Amino acid sequence: MSRPPLAKASLASKFDRIDEPWQPRIIARVNDTHVKLVKFHGSFVWHHHDTEDEMFLVVKGRMSMELKGQDPEAMGEGDFINVPAGVEHRPVVPEGEEAQVMMIEPATTVNTGSTGGDRTTEAKWI
Amino acid sequence: MSRPPLAKASLASKFDRIDEPWQPRIIARVNDTHVKLVKFHGSFVWHHHDTEDEMFLVVKGRMSMELKGQDPEAMGEGDFINVPAGVEHRPVVPEGEEAQVMMIEPATTVNTGSTGGDRTTEAKWI
Repeated sequence: MSRPPLAKASLASKFDRIDEPWQPRIIARVNDTHVKLVKFHGSFVWHHHDTEDEMFLVVKGRMSMELKGQDPEAMGEGDFINVPAGVEHRPVVPEGEEAQVMMIEPATTVNTGSTGGDRTTEAKWI
Repeated sequence: MSRPPLAKASLASKFDRIDEPWQPRIIARVNDTHVKLVKFHGSFVWHHHDTEDEMFLVVKGRMSMELKGQDPEAMGEGDFINVPAGVEHRPVVPEGEEAQVMMIEPATTVNTGSTGGDRTTEAKWI
């Protein structure tokens, strides 16, 4: 087999290259799944995904995962939460702070899910 | 919709509950993909996966990803590498050390891939 050498990368170096909040950046494809990095600032929009589960892992900073029908989950570095398809959710970060978050979700996932609107954006490779 | 509340968890608390090396423990299902935690000690077996890609992220410690046909990649905390299907690989940790690693791979993935043998084990939920 001839292939280009595989190379490691660091999460920190990838995050350093992200200059806008709420813009998902793809760092890996695992079959039909994408691993993405996102910088969260302030509040996102309430939304759900009809068919896609999502895992959120806080790499740096802190955030709250607001979830319809229950109390929000306050999350710090190294905390993760799995949000199954269909569950309304909204990530929120304290004013003036930034959370660096890794997301694992099917490649078909649209960031605003069923809600759409002007915060919808396409995930790009970084 | 009625569902049990969703709860965050920490990677550290999950790793604390793993007492054997090379035993993958599932912490999340994202559609057809599993997120697993594994403690690496010493050397694993050379193997590949016919159809499954894998991402490795070093959460704690250090390791080397040996890859057929190229130099090994030395990885520390926060480093990740994507190993596509078909690529022979072997994770190795310096003698006497432990690396805590997150793996993202299709739920169908068998730890020893095409090689099999007595280090084959079933991933369990933790």
